[in-house]
Amino acid sequence: MQEDILEKIRAEIDKSLVSGCDKGKGKYENMNSSKCNLTEFVGASSVGDTIGLVIAKVDPQLLDAMKVEKKYRSIGIIGDRTGAGPHIFAADEAVKATNTEIIAIELPRDTKGGAGHGSLIIFGADDVSDVRRAVEVTLDEVNNRVFGDVYGNEAGHVELDYTARASYACNKGLGAPLGRSFGTIVGAPAAIGLVMADTALKAANVEVVSYCTPGNGTSFSNEVILNVSGDSGAVRQAVIAAREVGIKLLSTLGSEPVNSQPSYI
Amino acid sequence: MQEDILEKIRAEIDKSLVSGCDKGKGKYENMNSSKCNLTEFVGASSVGDTIGLVIAKVDPQLLDAMKVEKKYRSIGIIGDRTGAGPHIFAADEAVKATNTEIIAIELPRDTKGGAGHGSLIIFGADDVSDVRRAVEVTLDEVNNRVFGDVYGNEAGHVELDYTARASYACNKGLGAPLGRSFGTIVGAPAAIGLVMADTALKAANVEVVSYCTPGNGTSFSNEVILNVSGDSGAVRQAVIAAREVGIKLLSTLGSEPVNSQPSYI
Amino acid sequence: MQEDILEKIRAEIDKSLVSGCDKGKGKYENMNSSKCNLTEFVGASSVGDTIGLVIAKVDPQLLDAMKVEKKYRSIGIIGDRTGAGPHIFAADEAVKATNTEIIAIELPRDTKGGAGHGSLIIFGADDVSDVRRAVEVTLDEVNNRVFGDVYGNEAGHVELDYTARASYACNKGLGAPLGRSFGTIVGAPAAIGLVMADTALKAANVEVVSYCTPGNGTSFSNEVILNVSGDSGAVRQAVIAAREVGIKLLSTLGSEPVNSQPSYI
Repeated sequence: MQEDILEKIRAEIDKSLVSGCDKGKGKYENMNSSKCNLTEFVGASSVGDTIGLVIAKVDPQLLDAMKVEKKYRSIGIIGDRTGAGPHIFAADEAVKATNTEIIAIELPRDTKGGAGHGSLIIFGADDVSDVRRAVEVTLDEVNNRVFGDVYGNEAGHVELDYTARASYACNKGLGAPLGRSFGTIVGAPAAIGLVMADTALKAANVEVVSYCTPGNGTSFSNEVILNVSGDSGAVRQAVIAAREVGIKLLSTLGSEPVNSQPSYI
Repeated sequence: MQEDILEKIRAEIDKSLVSGCDKGKGKYENMNSSKCNLTEFVGASSVGDTIGLVIAKVDPQLLDAMKVEKKYRSIGIIGDRTGAGPHIFAADEAVKATNTEIIAIELPRDTKGGAGHGSLIIFGADDVSDVRRAVEVTLDEVNNRVFGDVYGNEAGHVELDYTARASYACNKGLGAPLGRSFGTIVGAPAAIGLVMADTALKAANVEVVSYCTPGNGTSFSNEVILNVSGDSGAVRQAVIAAREVGIKLLSTLGSEPVNSQPSYI
Repeated sequence: MQEDILEKIRAEIDKSLVSGCDKGKGKYENMNSSKCNLTEFVGASSVGDTIGLVIAKVDPQLLDAMKVEKKYRSIGIIGDRTGAGPHIFAADEAVKATNTEIIAIELPRDTKGGAGHGSLIIFGADDVSDVRRAVEVTLDEVNNRVFGDVYGNEAGHVELDYTARASYACNKGLGAPLGRSFGTIVGAPAAIGLVMADTALKAANVEVVSYCTPGNGTSFSNEVILNVSGDSGAVRQAVIAAREVGIKLLSTLGSEPVNSQPSYI
């Protein structure tokens, strides 16, 4: 019997290691946000270890140090350990839905030992209720939608992001032309992303917005990232073709890659 | 009963994952340093996986390749996987206590899958006994004091460092004005560090020495870092206010953040 | 009895954590490559989570975006999570054995929470069979040889690479003079690599090709890397001396460092 138990334990350990190392891809329950009584706190999510915060009136010394182009009185902040594309596309919906502006997007090398990025996204507005609303919309997107086409296993991840109409977050963070359909195609290890990029461009008539690699345009992440723009149907087609190939390739390095939310593309 | 055991196992696994991923925050026993008979070896600590080494007479070809400003015959070396601020503040005490100079401080992106930095700190002197002493003092500080205000959980960390009088290590590594009181405020994920920075600046009359983010001034770590200088009381007050807010925010993403040594600030 | 089991469990967990965090150093079984029917797929290995791919005719838009010096119709791609030196030295053998050229080598900060790099290596040729052969040779080297002098434990790694005659991959990726004997010496945490470098240069009459640190010449990895060139015997002697010291130092931070393939140097 002891052997039986040890087998179960090994399975548990393996499961925990996958979720521990390439996290944010296997958990999507919302966190207990009620335990924080700070006025700065808006919400937290276990999806990517995401936190949403606001500062009603930023300290002037800090505002100078931040070197932002436009100095807003109030800022909203999204930070996470796992996820750059999904959080930027989530923030894009928030910008469309609120009276805010994106003042900074930065991508740490993170994912808790995984192959990709975390993110730091800052919204600005003259009124704290506006940035608070933007943070809420972003958290809601993170909790329910934008991780739908992120597929991970113990060896890496495949990520697809899509919008029918890119707004200011996709523009600031990923160079998307405003108002056009836009897609992001990511594969890790980077070699997989390169074949996904080739597949996407052969599958549909889209334009390359940017092509990022471990040494160029990423924060030394182990990813190839292709950003594409074009007609809505073409961008979707390119993204879907890349997704199919990416999942097949990633599965050769480990278990079947899984997403943690329903696919939306 | 089997279910009971599996529950215990899950708890064990979770505990191990936390210490495995954001390590250096839950262990502080000293390591068995007696097993190495190399003259270069000074000591090792499981706190941050820190090693202390000396080279009595550096090879001239290496000294050229190192491109250090001042070529010392003897160097002392501190390296670790987890910890930049704590190790720099530890080295600061070592510089005060010995006849050595800091010739290089570099910060790898590390923490073993965590959100922050490791460090490589090099002391120089004309006599090997001086750099050996500096390495010993640093290791002692790492083992007993400087991790006192580093609080971690499975989602990130909050780090505070403070000195009443900054010396050459804080100056070289973090830009501290010499001889003045100096504090470092760190939060990860970066969003937490940003609110901590705002809180610190509102809490006391201190000056911003530098403000670092994932894309500016860090090695793409998932941290916002604020370095402040000023009167001793003001710096302490700023750091303590930031600590309180940081711990509250980090706890919304997971379990209660804990330190591995007694708080010293 | 329950306590007995919990002890065994803790041991299992610790074992899993080591292989989960500093991976690629304890596994070398080949992976089931038969499960992928894509023409782009050449092979996969659990050693470093390595994948080998080809694109017979790269999309012209992608070729433009890749900004490679020489535009080949066909490319071969090696990507991995753990391993830069070993993969570059493997690709070096591939270039010698095939009619291909190295068009890009990039090093993400990775190793799945470990202290080092992954890699992205791209071969170019006019004929897809040539790049396919290069990828196959590289995978074979990765599966059987080049990890022979990579020693890891829970705290870091020591890596040695050696060739009697450097070709275009070592030249492009590490600056090796063509046709000469060449060696790479790596220690992590970085402090260990620094003492290894000093030891190597004192042990034999070799020339420094380059010296890389967390802040200079790496992708912020926690390594010191010394690349040396010279007579074959001298380079081997330097590498072997560094290996001995590196293993001794790394063992002070944890368990005895182990390699996953037989040593070849």
